[in-house]
Amino acid sequence: MWNHSRLLELLKIDHPIIQAGMAGGVTTPELVAAVSNAGGLGTLGAGYMTPGAMRESIQEINSLTRNSFGVNVFVPEFPNATEEEISRVNQVLDSFRDELGIEDETKLQVDESLFDNQIKVIIEAGVPVCSFTFGIPNQETIKKLKEEGIVLIGTATSVEEAILNEQYGMDAVVAQGSEAGGHRGTFQGSYEGVGSMSLIPQIVDNVSIPVIAAGGIMDGRGVCASMVLGADGAQLGTAFVTCNESGAKTQHKEAILHTKETETVMTSSFSGKQARGIRNAFIEKMEGHERLEYPLQNSLTKGIRTEAAKQNKPEYMSLWSGQSPRLSRSESAAELMQSIVSQAKRINS
Amino acid sequence: MWNHSRLLELLKIDHPIIQAGMAGGVTTPELVAAVSNAGGLGTLGAGYMTPGAMRESIQEINSLTRNSFGVNVFVPEFPNATEEEISRVNQVLDSFRDELGIEDETKLQVDESLFDNQIKVIIEAGVPVCSFTFGIPNQETIKKLKEEGIVLIGTATSVEEAILNEQYGMDAVVAQGSEAGGHRGTFQGSYEGVGSMSLIPQIVDNVSIPVIAAGGIMDGRGVCASMVLGADGAQLGTAFVTCNESGAKTQHKEAILHTKETETVMTSSFSGKQARGIRNAFIEKMEGHERLEYPLQNSLTKGIRTEAAKQNKPEYMSLWSGQSPRLSRSESAAELMQSIVSQAKRINS
Repeated sequence: MWNHSRLLELLKIDHPIIQAGMAGGVTTPELVAAVSNAGGLGTLGAGYMTPGAMRESIQEINSLTRNSFGVNVFVPEFPNATEEEISRVNQVLDSFRDELGIEDETKLQVDESLFDNQIKVIIEAGVPVCSFTFGIPNQETIKKLKEEGIVLIGTATSVEEAILNEQYGMDAVVAQGSEAGGHRGTFQGSYEGVGSMSLIPQIVDNVSIPVIAAGGIMDGRGVCASMVLGADGAQLGTAFVTCNESGAKTQHKEAILHTKETETVMTSSFSGKQARGIRNAFIEKMEGHERLEYPLQNSLTKGIRTEAAKQNKPEYMSLWSGQSPRLSRSESAAELMQSIVSQAKRINS
Repeated sequence: MWNHSRLLELLKIDHPIIQAGMAGGVTTPELVAAVSNAGGLGTLGAGYMTPGAMRESIQEINSLTRNSFGVNVFVPEFPNATEEEISRVNQVLDSFRDELGIEDETKLQVDESLFDNQIKVIIEAGVPVCSFTFGIPNQETIKKLKEEGIVLIGTATSVEEAILNEQYGMDAVVAQGSEAGGHRGTFQGSYEGVGSMSLIPQIVDNVSIPVIAAGGIMDGRGVCASMVLGADGAQLGTAFVTCNESGAKTQHKEAILHTKETETVMTSSFSGKQARGIRNAFIEKMEGHERLEYPLQNSLTKGIRTEAAKQNKPEYMSLWSGQSPRLSRSESAAELMQSIVSQAKRINS
């Protein structure tokens, strides 16, 4: 099973292991290339990146590996907020800003052409694999990418979303279970997250494209269990955050390495969208308070998160983590890949 | 792996499949015996049963099978509620009672000796396996049961709870993932449920007694995946609710058979304790309203749930279900067991 997956052929990789395209600087070119060089699929998390920064990172990845890799982008949404709403939320956030000694985030700049420009870079750079979070791009974009032979991966948190991904032409779909750290890919309705043990087989039964399991997977046991449930491979996020090559802040890495499985929560306080992170003072103090929709809330809290990291105040940082922090380790991406593969081989033998 | 588990020897069963001891009339003697006769461990859900009813059911099970089986009981808790609190909650519940044409539940009788009397029946009847939910019994009770050679299984929803179960002498522990239907076994602190993909390996790494995976498991894929994650076996609840022999109300069975994976929620509105069921009008209308602690809330809502079933109003019933309802089937317990075992054999071959 391990070595005969159609996913390996589709993505041109040796092992059915995908490093999640986490945004926010975690996925350095070094991390992406290390995973791809070890036979998995490294992924640049370009969700928040400018086209220029993306171009540079992709060049660097290409200089570090000749293997296949992916770039992840966010399907955009443009919610509105009145001046009053913004000012009310800013008032709540001011208590954090005061403590950190920083100013109001008064301008909410949204670059409406960002996504299209990111897609242009992906096409120009000839990126082998492009994955999407927060929805499915429009048909024109899908067509353009497909004409270039770029493999497309969507994200689903329900059977319905997985079916939509298949219908709109995605070549594979990530089934994101509730255990996953960071943002939910949810784009159809709102519901409690569905755990991987439930989500994977139910999605597998309802689509024919390859399914990539995600959520709580940290080692060879998780990858093999996903495949036993019918997935073609697995995507790991948190497991790669603590790797040496990861660009995650030291406080973020340390927090994951010392957290228990019961200490993460779902919160929309940082970005306006539900995401799983380690419970801290920011999340607790924001409970019950109004917040803007994604990505507006994300813009409003950015200064706080950045400054909190500088001042070494992890209690106000977004410490994204899945529900398996006890399985996290501090090592190189090559070592992590190696240990996953050898554990999987032992299980399969 | 499948046929060499220490759990099989411990429980004297052929297949590492345990039918969960669901309370409330689901686990008829016919269901329990059918599972045990098929080589799994049937379990009588005696949580709410009187000693007399338990004795009768156990006799009936013994007349239907010579194989090993279990009885599940609830470790009791005795919260207080003032007359005022009770009357406030009753006021909320009166809108449902009015619609159903029934009276107030004015007396909250709690039989403080129920648990001890249940344990007496288990000992007298020589039940082979006794499992616990909602905590760990006191040392005296554990000692008495062990002296009789009764195998003890605890329930954990976190690593810490699993370690406590081992420390207090449980012979095995159920790792209940967030996907599970019905009540959480949580007894240490309060936290978001941890998904099976995360919970199982983290518990396996921290205890040496056999671990039984639970939550979202409905078929051979789920049982095998649990074992790949390091569990010694799996416990299935929802999968058995829809079986022919199950005593679940017809509306409950039908609801599971027609529900999507995104339609269950965690709620404490029925019993005062968090439990996963299919979202319906009762859950929605109770949102934000005060409720008593378990088991007081459970007593207050009992009349409503019973009458709603009689009047065929599933919108006011507790429709417990895990997160894999799309995998549910209407068949005999023997057919379900057979299909799990043959699917598992195909996966392992």
